[in-house]
Amino acid sequence: MQHYIEQQLKRLDWNIAPQQLYQPIGYALESGGKRIRPQLVLMGCELFGGTRDAALPAALAIEVFHNFTLLHDDIMDNADMRRGRPTVHRKWNDNTAILSGDAMMIKAYELLEQLSEKQLAQILPLFTKTALQVCEGQQFDVNLELCEEATMDEYFEMIRLKTAVLLAAALKMGALVAGANESDAQLLYDFGIDIGIAFQLRDDYLDTFGNADTFGKRIGGDIVCGKKTFLLITALNNADAAQRQMLKQTMADKQLNEAEKIAIVTKFYQQFGADKACENAIGERYQQALNHLERITGHKNDKKPLAELAAKLMGRNL
Amino acid sequence: MQHYIEQQLKRLDWNIAPQQLYQPIGYALESGGKRIRPQLVLMGCELFGGTRDAALPAALAIEVFHNFTLLHDDIMDNADMRRGRPTVHRKWNDNTAILSGDAMMIKAYELLEQLSEKQLAQILPLFTKTALQVCEGQQFDVNLELCEEATMDEYFEMIRLKTAVLLAAALKMGALVAGANESDAQLLYDFGIDIGIAFQLRDDYLDTFGNADTFGKRIGGDIVCGKKTFLLITALNNADAAQRQMLKQTMADKQLNEAEKIAIVTKFYQQFGADKACENAIGERYQQALNHLERITGHKNDKKPLAELAAKLMGRNL
Repeated sequence: MQHYIEQQLKRLDWNIAPQQLYQPIGYALESGGKRIRPQLVLMGCELFGGTRDAALPAALAIEVFHNFTLLHDDIMDNADMRRGRPTVHRKWNDNTAILSGDAMMIKAYELLEQLSEKQLAQILPLFTKTALQVCEGQQFDVNLELCEEATMDEYFEMIRLKTAVLLAAALKMGALVAGANESDAQLLYDFGIDIGIAFQLRDDYLDTFGNADTFGKRIGGDIVCGKKTFLLITALNNADAAQRQMLKQTMADKQLNEAEKIAIVTKFYQQFGADKACENAIGERYQQALNHLERITGHKNDKKPLAELAAKLMGRNL
Repeated sequence: MQHYIEQQLKRLDWNIAPQQLYQPIGYALESGGKRIRPQLVLMGCELFGGTRDAALPAALAIEVFHNFTLLHDDIMDNADMRRGRPTVHRKWNDNTAILSGDAMMIKAYELLEQLSEKQLAQILPLFTKTALQVCEGQQFDVNLELCEEATMDEYFEMIRLKTAVLLAAALKMGALVAGANESDAQLLYDFGIDIGIAFQLRDDYLDTFGNADTFGKRIGGDIVCGKKTFLLITALNNADAAQRQMLKQTMADKQLNEAEKIAIVTKFYQQFGADKACENAIGERYQQALNHLERITGHKNDKKPLAELAAKLMGRNL
């Protein structure tokens, strides 16, 4: 399925004028990634008896939109690299990344035009609502970064909007293309929300407790950046006043060398049960997701591919 | 009509969370401007017997989209002021202008959802195609700025995409909402293209030959910035090799004080008939626009409001 998506993405032609506008889009899209979101669209469609080809416009739109958000996020985060290559704003410049990103978002909408009138009327509002939520999620992420301390509710709302809604919308768009009823499409959406949140929690967890060889990013990056993750918020919630003070001081200490800071904070996390709490939260969300999937009744094909993808995203076997 | 649009724009609620995302949108939209584009949507609709209310979603979408392009253009141009107030990226910062701009573009699409299924299927592709063209126009503008010399064809293609297509699409969207036939809608589109190009030519003309009191911007700004306008390209085309060299040297001379540069280049323009050529080009385009308007046959209401607006944009009386 990933191969099919890769092939179809390659068929989009970015070798058009003005090349200064479209070439960076081709560059951004050829950089790979796991193509989770378009896979979810296709799987959502196939579950209800639709074909891959029918779901393709929505799948490509979601992937182009997702990569547009990365383009603009990378400017805002001043990120140098993405998937092992220079980011667009580094390889070209900020203005190029802004304008090519804009064109990319519009192209995502253009891809949706291939849907039928009826499908379009159903899917466009979902796509638009989700796109706005992703912007809101990015803003909440910025806000969390700037605030002194975050609550668990704020954290969950941020990852729901920034990560989960797009996965959920991908699944629901696929279901709608196949003509699923609203209740089943919504269950699939809810499955996506919980998988998305579990996935983000797992990413937070692995950032501190993962294996450097398989994680792909450096271990402890979130601690060094002072990111408000589930682990930090849990540890702060569970600590007493003096311990809270100490944890916050350690996080803010600019003298401390990075390896030392990571070691101390990791120990704090373990001391206050943040690692276990995170594992539990992941397990609960994953189970909740499977329950939503279970409750779907109008499917025409096996739920197994979706359950398998969910398990894979959790690093588990079925 | 402008009052009606102002009122309806005010009804859009930007006082929502996260306020860091939506407040700058409200700020950008309250800064006024002549609201030409939404007026054109309403006029295009009324010409074919549609109501203002029916055209409103498309009118607001066009205005929100237009202001989104200003937000991002102002970052790229590093502009400090817009309509007498600090630009969004100055009042807040670049990241805010990027992300709020993104949300604004998505909001423009959201406004279109109020159209009927059938209208949406007609209007969405036009809106999307036009939005892409506006991005292309902005890129061509950047390219012209960076290139050594521009041809007249390149100049016209740039102003067509950057300015004219959005005016034209505004009119056509209005016509489509009212159920105009494709041929009439296209004639109205063509009217918009020629008015848009004439309007931009006139803006170029007034930048050098206008009256400082009524133009609203400083006279000679394009000369100081070395902008490749119709005037400059015409003068270069009409000059002989030695004169060309002199004109280009004057434009590039960084020692020359601005008032002197403006005076010398303005004289060059007159010497090589660029002012007269520009007046003629404006007159021709305006006449061509009126011819398109004339050929429309399926209208239900008077063409006069459109002819009047066109005349107003040309600084003429009917």
